[in-house]
Amino acid sequence: MTREELRSLVRTVPDFPIAGIQFRDITTLIADSRGLASAVAHLADLASPDVAAVAGIEARGFIFGAALAMQLGTGFIPVRKAGKLPVETISEDYALEYGAATIEIDPTLVPQGGRVLLVDDLIATGGTALAAASLLRRAGGLVDTALFVIDLPELGGAAALRSAGVAADAVMEFAGH
Amino acid sequence: MTREELRSLVRTVPDFPIAGIQFRDITTLIADSRGLASAVAHLADLASPDVAAVAGIEARGFIFGAALAMQLGTGFIPVRKAGKLPVETISEDYALEYGAATIEIDPTLVPQGGRVLLVDDLIATGGTALAAASLLRRAGGLVDTALFVIDLPELGGAAALRSAGVAADAVMEFAGH
Repeated sequence: MTREELRSLVRTVPDFPIAGIQFRDITTLIADSRGLASAVAHLADLASPDVAAVAGIEARGFIFGAALAMQLGTGFIPVRKAGKLPVETISEDYALEYGAATIEIDPTLVPQGGRVLLVDDLIATGGTALAAASLLRRAGGLVDTALFVIDLPELGGAAALRSAGVAADAVMEFAGH
Repeated sequence: MTREELRSLVRTVPDFPIAGIQFRDITTLIADSRGLASAVAHLADLASPDVAAVAGIEARGFIFGAALAMQLGTGFIPVRKAGKLPVETISEDYALEYGAATIEIDPTLVPQGGRVLLVDDLIATGGTALAAASLLRRAGGLVDTALFVIDLPELGGAAALRSAGVAADAVMEFAGH
């Protein structure tokens, strides 16, 4: 599928989770067998060479991240919400487009000096992705690329990641919030 | 990898999330590139023919479910915790091994009369999987098989699923809780 065909599989839900947000919903894309496979193929095309591991951000980033790890033949590192991992973790607090939260990783899962490709379904302000990149770097990973299915460029997340030395790319963009 | 090799990649964490629980942690298995690919290959070997869609239970079921959907060439339906889906949902409350919760699906994503393969990382008492099977059936899916990476047979989940007409199978078993 072309990127335009994939884009047509994304469902836009107005006023979720709060008034004024146009929620870009990937569940309609992934429920389509060709949509899921094609989105993952496009992500794989955007990946750098020599990826040692894919890290996906809970929860929708687990879907694309695990599928991409399979496609690239790497392992998968879950970046989890606070309290979910059963071992000693490192954590970062961050601001969301709507709210605030904490994410955690098990640092022993990160390949030392290896390239860790960060993946999520969507980048808005980039707060979650920046926190995830910081965590993976603190644990010894080389984080120079983050991939998303959807970028909302007006919210500045990709630019913020670039300022932190992380090249951000996406399969498609949507204007507005 | 053999099932025994895969089993050796699972990390056991005592007393998580509460005292007395031996938590079987799949993050060490999925962080291993061969472990992830092999677990998904074993799940694919256990799958029925003619799977129309794979449904995975939030959050660890997203990892194996999406990867398995890629492997089988199907779409993926997320079974989510309450409040995450942006559209009208159907929901089920259920008891957990430790706690209680509500899961939801978007019924419009379920292929009418199509076989929906339910996937999660682990089955304990089966409460979550039974609720998910019920939801997918209410939405028009044919749910006759559920696959897990880990079964804790002493907790009775696989037997409970069988009583509900869902054949449950797993890549590996662990004794105890």
